[in-house]
Amino acid sequence: MTIVKKIHHIAVVVEDFEAALGFWRDALGLELTHIEDVPKQKVQVAFLPLGESEIELVKPTDPEAGIARFLEKSGPGMHHICVGVDDIVAKLDELKEKGIRLINEAPLLGEGGRRYAFIHPKSTHGVLVELYEIPA
Amino acid sequence: MTIVKKIHHIAVVVEDFEAALGFWRDALGLELTHIEDVPKQKVQVAFLPLGESEIELVKPTDPEAGIARFLEKSGPGMHHICVGVDDIVAKLDELKEKGIRLINEAPLLGEGGRRYAFIHPKSTHGVLVELYEIPA
Repeated sequence: MTIVKKIHHIAVVVEDFEAALGFWRDALGLELTHIEDVPKQKVQVAFLPLGESEIELVKPTDPEAGIARFLEKSGPGMHHICVGVDDIVAKLDELKEKGIRLINEAPLLGEGGRRYAFIHPKSTHGVLVELYEIPA
Repeated sequence: MTIVKKIHHIAVVVEDFEAALGFWRDALGLELTHIEDVPKQKVQVAFLPLGESEIELVKPTDPEAGIARFLEKSGPGMHHICVGVDDIVAKLDELKEKGIRLINEAPLLGEGGRRYAFIHPKSTHGVLVELYEIPA
């Protein structure tokens, strides 16, 4: 079986970076390393490392973004858990064999060529789970 | 400033352990170390370590449990993020000074005498955050 290594990040949907950073950075004391534009998903992401993981604050840049619809329906809050895996293609195959429903049957390519895929919350009992490949 | 060390756990509310473990243990491949009764909170908790963190599956044992009401209102899914801190009393003081609203102004005592406290989601922009003291 492939290895699930760690929580890579927790994605938190926010309406406004400054307000959210008022808690995560200024009050809780995490460091904000950088903010990235992810035009493909019509979002901006603020990265705050925490141990071997990160808190990622995600803000829609367009009312048509999936995240904007989430925000409208559910308000700001936790969006998904991302776990780091050693071999994403093998892990997706294992999940499919076990009858797990995937949002992405094959990995997508993110920044820097890193591969990721989402598992459907129907198969996880309500949690949106992302897999992210972390090479050994 | 006090130190926030890591994501200690992510709490996921479930209706049924076997169904949820069908994903987290049997499909994703995490190890289930043990299941604990927490009678004070009228829940049982299943612990699945993941890197330096844990996924904790929380199941109500009584319809009056806070978690049972969450389940009824929102369905199964992510409930809170718990972060490990070095000095919880100092951290709670820092948060209060910064105007952060706390659910627990003083730490509660958990299993084994470990101290924890919850921050109100009004002050975190929609995320229920728990602090858990991890001695140095």
